[in-house]
Amino acid sequence: MATETRGRMTAMPVISAKRMQDRIDAIVEAATAVFGAKGYEAASIAEIARAAEISDGLIYRYFSNKRDLLYRVLEAFYERVVAALEKEAANGATFEDRLHALIRRHLGNFVADRELCRLFLSEVRVASDYKGSAIQNLNRRYVSVLTALIEAGIGQGEVKADASPRLVRNVIFGAIEHIAWPYVNGDGKLDVDETAKAVTALIYGGIGIPAKT
Amino acid sequence: MATETRGRMTAMPVISAKRMQDRIDAIVEAATAVFGAKGYEAASIAEIARAAEISDGLIYRYFSNKRDLLYRVLEAFYERVVAALEKEAANGATFEDRLHALIRRHLGNFVADRELCRLFLSEVRVASDYKGSAIQNLNRRYVSVLTALIEAGIGQGEVKADASPRLVRNVIFGAIEHIAWPYVNGDGKLDVDETAKAVTALIYGGIGIPAKT
Repeated sequence: MATETRGRMTAMPVISAKRMQDRIDAIVEAATAVFGAKGYEAASIAEIARAAEISDGLIYRYFSNKRDLLYRVLEAFYERVVAALEKEAANGATFEDRLHALIRRHLGNFVADRELCRLFLSEVRVASDYKGSAIQNLNRRYVSVLTALIEAGIGQGEVKADASPRLVRNVIFGAIEHIAWPYVNGDGKLDVDETAKAVTALIYGGIGIPAKT
Repeated sequence: MATETRGRMTAMPVISAKRMQDRIDAIVEAATAVFGAKGYEAASIAEIARAAEISDGLIYRYFSNKRDLLYRVLEAFYERVVAALEKEAANGATFEDRLHALIRRHLGNFVADRELCRLFLSEVRVASDYKGSAIQNLNRRYVSVLTALIEAGIGQGEVKADASPRLVRNVIFGAIEHIAWPYVNGDGKLDVDETAKAVTALIYGGIGIPAKT
């Protein structure tokens, strides 16, 4: 990415790579706030420029359009949550604990970043340009944390040997999205603790091998 | 609805209620085929009129615009699948059999009516006019078939007493949508039989009380 950005910049006044990255970060941060507060449709490049305290023209040096900016906002968001999830998956003494921690964290993301989750689900994932995008790759990395956890659980005899990690992963992420969507879309509440416990119990009941006491 | 349609028609030449309904049905059928073949964006009222062998103007007597027509197409589709699901839920000797039949039918809908499912998931359910629509009501009726099945299972001692019918329902529908979406969106295959068996085994493993033999 650095090379590509530098390529675009050849005709521009020379600024340091550090200063360029700071600007990009400031724009993405401002765009995150504006999209988060107003939604994608209502947000404008002019408003994002004002929030970042730079000119509209400077935004167009780094981003082609509003959609490009949305993708970069969601990439930055996804990078944060993937890192957090990867860390979380290492915690917990038993498979059941680790599964619970992961489900709880995933649900918690919908509450902590409701508008970004809404943008991802309603604007990006159903769009034709999602396939092959950097966000899809980050999504793959995100869900692979759960696949790896289930595979390890099978390896350590804590999960039934015939459980399909891919299927279980789809069931969990699909279920949680479905449960979180009304909340993300502005309707109703989402009790993270209670829901995480109930989903974990259901899934663990279906695939887990309780430890002998 | 009949009254409303009649109200709209007061200034029009008098035709029988039966003939009016036949026309509406023909338009909805043509729109289903055109949306199904071309998607929502690319479809035009003119094309739907040609397919229904009537004039564009006649469509506008019954429908305000393309979006109105999309909602009516999906309503007709949903009415069909709700009726089929309600029938299906009565089959099967045990709770596990009935659960399997219902999951299989739900998955099968995504294969049988791929484009209509895609339109529902990508155009309608994430849209702001979904809430309170007739389609949302049909969706509620559809998912309530599964809630009722789980409640009956608890009542008959085939499902754990502490299972939450609402949660289990959300987990199942969320999971299946998540699994079906790549296929519905034109990517990959969907093995209905295999997936239905695996999802049923997972859910039944989590909530079921096996019969004593």
